[in-house]
Amino acid sequence: MKIGVLGTGLVGNTIATKLVALGHEVRMGARSATNEKAAGWARSAGGRGSAGTFADAAAFGEILFNCCNGAGTLSALDAAGDANLRGKILIDVSNPLDFSRGMPPTLLIANTDSLGEQVQRTHPDAKVVKALNTMNCNVMVNPGLVKGEHDVFISGNDPEAKARVVELLRSFGWKNVVDAGDISAARGQEALLILWARLFGAMQTPTFNFHVAR
Amino acid sequence: MKIGVLGTGLVGNTIATKLVALGHEVRMGARSATNEKAAGWARSAGGRGSAGTFADAAAFGEILFNCCNGAGTLSALDAAGDANLRGKILIDVSNPLDFSRGMPPTLLIANTDSLGEQVQRTHPDAKVVKALNTMNCNVMVNPGLVKGEHDVFISGNDPEAKARVVELLRSFGWKNVVDAGDISAARGQEALLILWARLFGAMQTPTFNFHVAR
Repeated sequence: MKIGVLGTGLVGNTIATKLVALGHEVRMGARSATNEKAAGWARSAGGRGSAGTFADAAAFGEILFNCCNGAGTLSALDAAGDANLRGKILIDVSNPLDFSRGMPPTLLIANTDSLGEQVQRTHPDAKVVKALNTMNCNVMVNPGLVKGEHDVFISGNDPEAKARVVELLRSFGWKNVVDAGDISAARGQEALLILWARLFGAMQTPTFNFHVAR
Repeated sequence: MKIGVLGTGLVGNTIATKLVALGHEVRMGARSATNEKAAGWARSAGGRGSAGTFADAAAFGEILFNCCNGAGTLSALDAAGDANLRGKILIDVSNPLDFSRGMPPTLLIANTDSLGEQVQRTHPDAKVVKALNTMNCNVMVNPGLVKGEHDVFISGNDPEAKARVVELLRSFGWKNVVDAGDISAARGQEALLILWARLFGAMQTPTFNFHVAR
């Protein structure tokens, strides 16, 4: 499948690399067409990887991942352009983390709204699915790093889009996918970061994840 | 042990009843000395249960549970009185839930502060330990209701107080106690309610709990 990955940081790199390893064609998008990190990733990814602007990557992909940081997400999606997002599944991995108050981070948006909802509101024709934002990026693409049962949460307004994201997550190795509801449930997924950051501090490792036991 | 339970709702009742079953003497505190719910609980609890005001219950207990609702917590603790809280372990079970926007609830305090921290700030001589606020009250006192590994989170500034709370939690049946850090980690514990409320809606049962897999 052709997949666009918006964002050139650690999360974008890790997901784009996993997608190429799974046989997909991936275009990494950046603010500028000459972004060195995106170009470097594309070179290292071999024939199935390429780089371009946010708009290039969005136009290229049948499915899109938003891996930008939270503060840069809305402007990146504006740059990607509504026409390139229309009708497409947009997997929002980002978290609205605010490091300006020091560590651990707080959230730029919380409780009564979420970045996932803002993405869906500003791009109503995209099928936004919030997913993979509640764990370290190495765990995102290799759930086996964490022992025992643990889960990835998804939310979104389009059941068919969620079903396709579940398929993609299964190809990443995810056994437990927990559907938290419509995109407003992104509030819960993003709020989990507040606890995640504390546990990261307490346990001194990013290699852990949450499980809903019943 | 003599334990004071502040709050006459479902959470207060459930915890007070469990404590009596474990052999503790429990005084349930209410805003008024003639509160019918507290008196009714005390009658049903037999010889080890009694009822009184918030101040009566706080004076009685060597350890205290705050089981008031979030909106009523600070005024209940003011009524309990600083002199009755001084030096005591105060287990804060409450959540600052706001139902005024409809369901699922939002939080009255979130992200950059927490009710647990407000309780500690307003009563600096109490040893506040946030615990048990992240699951249904039946699960609080009977973790075996949920299958597999699952956890109770604690946070607080006093290591000795946390150690005593861990002991008490073990007597409730808790195997996994996760120390999330100082009392500011209550932000994470309370934020988990945002996701809890969504999962309650999605799964249509309150009988679940979170686990941190590593």
